[in-house]
Amino acid sequence: MSDLPRKVHIREEGPREGFQIEKGPIATHRKIELIDALSETGITHIQITSFVDGRRVPGMADAEAVVAGIRTRPGVHYEALWLNEKGLERAITAGRLHLEGNISMCASETFLRVNYNRSFESNISYAHQVLQSYLARGILVRRGHVSAAFGCNYQGDVPAAVVLDLVDRIRDIGSAHGVAITELLLADSMAWATPAQIKRVVGSIRERHPDLRIALHLHDTRGMGIANAYAGLEMGVDSFDASVAGLGGCPFARHQGAAGNVCTEDLVFMCHEMGIETGIDLDRLIECARQAEDIVGHPLPGSVKSGGGLAALRRQAH
Amino acid sequence: MSDLPRKVHIREEGPREGFQIEKGPIATHRKIELIDALSETGITHIQITSFVDGRRVPGMADAEAVVAGIRTRPGVHYEALWLNEKGLERAITAGRLHLEGNISMCASETFLRVNYNRSFESNISYAHQVLQSYLARGILVRRGHVSAAFGCNYQGDVPAAVVLDLVDRIRDIGSAHGVAITELLLADSMAWATPAQIKRVVGSIRERHPDLRIALHLHDTRGMGIANAYAGLEMGVDSFDASVAGLGGCPFARHQGAAGNVCTEDLVFMCHEMGIETGIDLDRLIECARQAEDIVGHPLPGSVKSGGGLAALRRQAH
Repeated sequence: MSDLPRKVHIREEGPREGFQIEKGPIATHRKIELIDALSETGITHIQITSFVDGRRVPGMADAEAVVAGIRTRPGVHYEALWLNEKGLERAITAGRLHLEGNISMCASETFLRVNYNRSFESNISYAHQVLQSYLARGILVRRGHVSAAFGCNYQGDVPAAVVLDLVDRIRDIGSAHGVAITELLLADSMAWATPAQIKRVVGSIRERHPDLRIALHLHDTRGMGIANAYAGLEMGVDSFDASVAGLGGCPFARHQGAAGNVCTEDLVFMCHEMGIETGIDLDRLIECARQAEDIVGHPLPGSVKSGGGLAALRRQAH
Repeated sequence: MSDLPRKVHIREEGPREGFQIEKGPIATHRKIELIDALSETGITHIQITSFVDGRRVPGMADAEAVVAGIRTRPGVHYEALWLNEKGLERAITAGRLHLEGNISMCASETFLRVNYNRSFESNISYAHQVLQSYLARGILVRRGHVSAAFGCNYQGDVPAAVVLDLVDRIRDIGSAHGVAITELLLADSMAWATPAQIKRVVGSIRERHPDLRIALHLHDTRGMGIANAYAGLEMGVDSFDASVAGLGGCPFARHQGAAGNVCTEDLVFMCHEMGIETGIDLDRLIECARQAEDIVGHPLPGSVKSGGGLAALRRQAH
């Protein structure tokens, strides 16, 4: 267990992942209420909204209002998602956001073709364009993303060699523009990963790129989220995306209704109980999880919000 | 990952764990329907009911009718729980059951005192009596049980040294009666375990008792069930209790309403995807999980029953 990190960084994605996928309209002030509460937990990075077409994704039509409405707390980075130039322009105009670009690849060519009408090669040309656009605007880029890194509902299994190759390509794209990619996010976008596979893929990337900080974006659709996070921790991964109460899912991935992102408070609980710091107040986070459930109006998948932490039980123990 | 076992044995406890805790009455024929369906999945051990006082646990008042009503399948061991001599007599009288005794200890003296009004020492005297009663009846005993092995809502943390000591005591009790204890079940009765702790406790027992086959009974109340199972697998544990759809909970443990036992189909999914055999047909098991949900009439916590397995997606992949 010597590889477990001492401290883990968690990026909260609940407000973006979660409110995007909810069917019913959620009032802007309630989204803001959750983001403001999350800001008080010790979380330092919160993805709060998505600048996408409000006609296609009605749940995100209030992106600007959300950004304008939150009570920003010093030390907290408020982030947003965008999928194209227009979205990026909106994010810049909104202000208040911590903007970072990334070089984004998808390990499933079928997924790329079905959802974006792109091949691997055309996606690489596109990545060069996107990177140029970030650099022209002075936006920091240090991260690569590989989505569908562990498997794809459209394509099936994804060999580790494909992911390794994409990591090389990502670094090459960066180099071509004088950008050093120092962080890599591996996303299990459609919940194909197992703990053993996390170890294999992370291990093979570490071997080839020992200088790269690896982050994991895990989905819990098949119940493997926390186990996969543990496997990541055992490989020394110290950066995770997560979603309070397990808010969210994946609209593209043929399993609507199933659980989405790995749950923040369950991940924080595991870290703390194993002696790993997160800088997050678990009790406050559990309150946020219950608030999230109240806001969406239906049960959310996280466990610790029902099972409770252990701190109070330890205090009462006799 | 060299310690992962090639084959894992799973004991299904859903019908007993689950129907015991449900508030509403569940018709006997529906319990039987689930047990019969589980018998067709390849599962070889099913705990089907509990011979407890039907006035205190109304959900189990039909224990005899359940045993009499099932369609027994050759190769499947139908098991039951009892808590005292009277329960054992009823199980014997019911017939059809695979009866095995065990030497049962609890790692929390507070839990023992609160729930059974016994100290560690009086519990040991009691264990001798129980063992004599099994032997007098010709009932096989080869297993030790340690409940609350990873922590207790009443007592707090449980040191590994306490568990180690109880394992010694269990083997001593067996030896005193000429009984070799070759298997040890560690139960995380109140869901305090983390993966790191599973490794520590299992590792320290393995070091002292390398001949003992270790089994895990895990609860998912705080979302750690599958991660804890993975940690067990990495320590070479090849025997698990689990509950279809995550049926169940723990009425004694101060967290009613939260998830109970680790979910069988999620565990089977993880094993298969990591190349570990279970002998269980995952698709049939998922059907049983959906049936269990229909029988109890409310959502149950398992993930794979909603997220789906990967076999069909692999077949459809293009």
